[in-house]
Amino acid sequence: MNRLLLAVVVALSGAAAAVPAFADEGMWTFDGFPSARVRATYDVNIDRRWLERVQAATVRIPGCSASVVSKDGLILTNNHCVVSCLVALSDDDTDHLRDGFLTDARTEERTCPGMFAEILVSITDVTAKINAATAGKSGSAYVQARDAATLAAETEVCRTVTAGRCQTISLFRGGKFAVYRYRRFTDVRMVFAPEFAAAFFGGDPDNFNFPRFNLDSSFLRLYDNGKPVKMPFHLAWNATAPKAGDVTFVPGSPGSTERLLTMSQLETARDLAVPASLLQRAELRGRLIEFGRRSPAAQRTVADAIFGTENGFKVVYGRQLALNDAGFMAARRKAEAELRAKVAADPALVARVGDPWADLEAVQPAYFRDYQPYRHLEADAGRSSRLFDWARLLVRAAEERPKPSADRLPEFTDARLAAAQRRALNPGKIEPDLEQLYLEFWLLKAREYLGTDPATLTVLLGSENPQGLAARLVTTTKLGDPEVRKALWEGGAEAIKASDDPLIKYALKIDAAARAARKAWETDVTAPTDQAAERVAQARFAAYGDSVYPDATSSLRLSYGKVAGWTWRGTETGPYTTFGGLFARATGAEPYALAPRWAAAKDSLNPDTVFNYVTTNDIIGGNSGSPVVNARGEVIGAAFDGNIHSIAGAYGYDEAVNRCVVVSTAAITEALTKVYGRDALVKELTGK
Amino acid sequence: MNRLLLAVVVALSGAAAAVPAFADEGMWTFDGFPSARVRATYDVNIDRRWLERVQAATVRIPGCSASVVSKDGLILTNNHCVVSCLVALSDDDTDHLRDGFLTDARTEERTCPGMFAEILVSITDVTAKINAATAGKSGSAYVQARDAATLAAETEVCRTVTAGRCQTISLFRGGKFAVYRYRRFTDVRMVFAPEFAAAFFGGDPDNFNFPRFNLDSSFLRLYDNGKPVKMPFHLAWNATAPKAGDVTFVPGSPGSTERLLTMSQLETARDLAVPASLLQRAELRGRLIEFGRRSPAAQRTVADAIFGTENGFKVVYGRQLALNDAGFMAARRKAEAELRAKVAADPALVARVGDPWADLEAVQPAYFRDYQPYRHLEADAGRSSRLFDWARLLVRAAEERPKPSADRLPEFTDARLAAAQRRALNPGKIEPDLEQLYLEFWLLKAREYLGTDPATLTVLLGSENPQGLAARLVTTTKLGDPEVRKALWEGGAEAIKASDDPLIKYALKIDAAARAARKAWETDVTAPTDQAAERVAQARFAAYGDSVYPDATSSLRLSYGKVAGWTWRGTETGPYTTFGGLFARATGAEPYALAPRWAAAKDSLNPDTVFNYVTTNDIIGGNSGSPVVNARGEVIGAAFDGNIHSIAGAYGYDEAVNRCVVVSTAAITEALTKVYGRDALVKELTGK
Repeated sequence: MNRLLLAVVVALSGAAAAVPAFADEGMWTFDGFPSARVRATYDVNIDRRWLERVQAATVRIPGCSASVVSKDGLILTNNHCVVSCLVALSDDDTDHLRDGFLTDARTEERTCPGMFAEILVSITDVTAKINAATAGKSGSAYVQARDAATLAAETEVCRTVTAGRCQTISLFRGGKFAVYRYRRFTDVRMVFAPEFAAAFFGGDPDNFNFPRFNLDSSFLRLYDNGKPVKMPFHLAWNATAPKAGDVTFVPGSPGSTERLLTMSQLETARDLAVPASLLQRAELRGRLIEFGRRSPAAQRTVADAIFGTENGFKVVYGRQLALNDAGFMAARRKAEAELRAKVAADPALVARVGDPWADLEAVQPAYFRDYQPYRHLEADAGRSSRLFDWARLLVRAAEERPKPSADRLPEFTDARLAAAQRRALNPGKIEPDLEQLYLEFWLLKAREYLGTDPATLTVLLGSENPQGLAARLVTTTKLGDPEVRKALWEGGAEAIKASDDPLIKYALKIDAAARAARKAWETDVTAPTDQAAERVAQARFAAYGDSVYPDATSSLRLSYGKVAGWTWRGTETGPYTTFGGLFARATGAEPYALAPRWAAAKDSLNPDTVFNYVTTNDIIGGNSGSPVVNARGEVIGAAFDGNIHSIAGAYGYDEAVNRCVVVSTAAITEALTKVYGRDALVKELTGK
Repeated sequence: MNRLLLAVVVALSGAAAAVPAFADEGMWTFDGFPSARVRATYDVNIDRRWLERVQAATVRIPGCSASVVSKDGLILTNNHCVVSCLVALSDDDTDHLRDGFLTDARTEERTCPGMFAEILVSITDVTAKINAATAGKSGSAYVQARDAATLAAETEVCRTVTAGRCQTISLFRGGKFAVYRYRRFTDVRMVFAPEFAAAFFGGDPDNFNFPRFNLDSSFLRLYDNGKPVKMPFHLAWNATAPKAGDVTFVPGSPGSTERLLTMSQLETARDLAVPASLLQRAELRGRLIEFGRRSPAAQRTVADAIFGTENGFKVVYGRQLALNDAGFMAARRKAEAELRAKVAADPALVARVGDPWADLEAVQPAYFRDYQPYRHLEADAGRSSRLFDWARLLVRAAEERPKPSADRLPEFTDARLAAAQRRALNPGKIEPDLEQLYLEFWLLKAREYLGTDPATLTVLLGSENPQGLAARLVTTTKLGDPEVRKALWEGGAEAIKASDDPLIKYALKIDAAARAARKAWETDVTAPTDQAAERVAQARFAAYGDSVYPDATSSLRLSYGKVAGWTWRGTETGPYTTFGGLFARATGAEPYALAPRWAAAKDSLNPDTVFNYVTTNDIIGGNSGSPVVNARGEVIGAAFDGNIHSIAGAYGYDEAVNRCVVVSTAAITEALTKVYGRDALVKELTGK
């Protein structure tokens, strides 16, 4: 259920900011929202007051978005955004993820461990201050000046705030800086969650697809000092589903987009990075599924890994669909040509930014050359093996810690050392069979993709083969024991050197080659890519200013659009599903089996109730849980997914096929009433 | 070990013939060999006599090529071309595939069941006759006239021959017709085969790769009336390895190429067919590998399937590499533009062929629309499940047999009915767990790629899920019993209708949808593709005549080239490996473990002996076992593989990276002498 959760997927390094917007495209900042354009297109008036109220009711929670839907701090988000809370609140007798979480009274609401929520209170443009501080500086002097000015700006804005947090957001890749001040809530309690079978009906087959029948919603409540927080603003609850063509707004915190990737970068993604990633995910998926057939215990062990692999596969698959779509690539090519023409027509701009498109094209041969060694020796080394991760952390921490902080690998600098230590000493249990599968798969794919030249592989395999080496390492290492790791962490370089743990010795043996691959990648690819991409962004900002939107950066944005289906390769998909459709689709066989409460409530539910619908809103991972708001500022749904084409939104928005998938407030209201009998909650939402 | 064996892989329908040749490109007919060009490039004289002698010593065996290397009918081919013979000659006590096949005397040579060999004796151009017979005819009248003229031509050529066979070869997609007359040998005996570990050292990781260390060779002998056949010609054995740059010739029977695919077809392959095929193969590969971990018995059950899946994966992966290579695609684009310019400059030609490039582009939307239903409902239905294949054959045979032959599906016409019956009544054993895996995987991927719209899937799944349906069908069907199938075949439509076998009922239930998908594909894609492709070929033949070579058609061809390494993405690969390299690479861990005889012989072998080498010869599946011949007409090796880039030879030849992989006669001679002690065989080859 990652879907619109923030997800780390294989991505090209570098490049940010956005291309000229058209149609319903754009993840706009609240202080740059194109109200005039929306008025021209949809004949609705999105004024300052509307924006302020919606901003004040839009919430950021870890990895997701949410909205305030009552004066008593009630929060609407997705069920898949609160999975870790549901698991944490479960015990041997109660499985809240499977069975849902129901409360009759506020006293039954329970705090989600580690959960927090933030609401954006103010946006302060500090571009002039940052630019003044950095004027004439370059290199590390520039970075130091910028960081100092940023800190000063945040301190100034947040000076008078106690329960707040300030964060400087770089927009348009440094074209603009703003301090975002958030009100922060750290006591967030679970109020309602449906059953997994209702929230994720259709499972992986329906994930990123539509038609869809998911009650992927849940309610939380903000508390302070043990009491619900009284909120100055909340979105009014409108339980009537919108009609096709109705305008819709989606506020939230989209994670990241890369919409200024150049054609040469997109082609490298299409021709190298995306297929390589996808093929390996596909094979791993097959291995994990079949691993689960060993026994019921193996099935439990591997279930999460299968879910993550299948979800990740679809994310990359959606990218491949777009990169392999002639129309999509033609649109990117056109946008790039337009921007390049604007630059070419401005000699001063040419003098400033040069030809970053040519520079990026020149980087691609190094990308092709360094990609596989970097992935297999460094970035993907060990795959999902926790044992290997621990071994590498211990080996590297021992080497890095004696150095001055500034000379260390970034993940071991003073600011991050504690996090590295926590990860290395994690008391979590390991599953040896699964560990072995991951290590073996890593080494098999390394051998396959690095080529069979012994010089490259000897360091990884020595005289063993992937199967034998993985089995030996997993069965003989003692790193599963947190005490063993603790001793090695505390013992530092001496302890590592003296260790006869086979996995420590192995991580030590391959580390020079891994560091070399990382260094080659960073030097030959990342650095020149970032430098050129920054100049693409400068060119764009010079050409268009903030009449267009910046790339997503996990900060508050607002998109506009409408309720609409789409057509793809000759197949038309309508904008709605209904409760009736759910029951027609429920075969009884997983993943199309109904939760028992739903089966029982079938006859009492209105089959025409709109369950899920799709809109043209421009969204991406991080928008999960975002409210869908109508022109009057009322909440009419919660965004919980995109269709498969929305994944391409990482590269560019295509109004013809890019769709946001929403669970309607109509469905939530009807389900709360007739399936779950949550009358108090319904009354709080609707007043009835 | 399919490698250069003929292999059926996912291929675009239609299109044939070749583009203007350059460099070392071309699979030339013996009567159209460009001796002048070879003389200009390599300063060697390939005259009529050279061609006649090499033709007379080149052999076609099922799926492979071979050569005559002694006057007593000794044949050199690849070990991987005789696997089925080695298996057939093995028993519970003797595993010739694993341990090799060694003879000290001719009396120990044993007949390979079902093996035959053919040598091309004459080529008779019958183009004028066929054209005269078909002049002015079209449609079915054309086809009937052509077939009658073809049969008459073959009968005339073969009239005086007893042990011969005549076959009309259509070249340049009907631009030229020739009757090829073969001398045929049906008693082919096994003389020598090395151990699997020597022939296929490096296994899947090294397959289609280089450096390489494989003694992938074997010897057969032609017999007639119980005696070795005295051959009029044989290739002289030269045990000296060639040097880099030396010219090399490869005669043999390359299977098929599609070098006139248009850009729109190549882009469809790149954007749809190739990635879809590759991703599913990758996942199936993962499932099969992990299936084998259930138990040693499961490992044995699945070993062949893993080999086939990995080999097929690499073939399609090689295609993807080329389709994703900017230089490769640019070369195809250039060749297409040149041909189109030639056509455009010739109004009469334009009037005759029209614009088949535009017509093919217009077919592509239907290709995209119909591809997944066709694959999942028809072409790939059941995947590798034998049970499903049997069920569908029985169901369809019952429906088709009552019709007149001409109205039946092609696979059930009178000419093919016996083959269908043999397949349906095959007494082979099934492996229920593997059957279940295949059926489940088929249904899972159908659900994934057909989309989740119930209308499409209800017919396949009803109210079950892929896992449950596959388990139910495999555990309850009785079709594993040949007697049950025999009764159903003989009982015809009545028996099928009355059957309560769950798999028969299932195949019956989905058949209408499957036939509809097939019909849509054939009507909307195959037919217009073939028609347009024929006009591309006509245009090409009109523009270039036979100054260029025809697409491969499993008939005798000759390519020229030289010994040379290559450079890819900055990595240089040299042209040679040596015995010393083998021992350096032999880690002892599978698949890099030496056969025991090789380990024992290590000290006696000259480490500088050239083991394998690569050449620029233009080869493709079907060339396995081809002799590599020097300018003097001596055999200096046996082609046994291509590098990964050679797979792209299906679409086009790229001299920069396309390489043929050869086992040297130097290595074979040294191994026969020092590893295997086959002195009689060495004497027969070398006279010493």
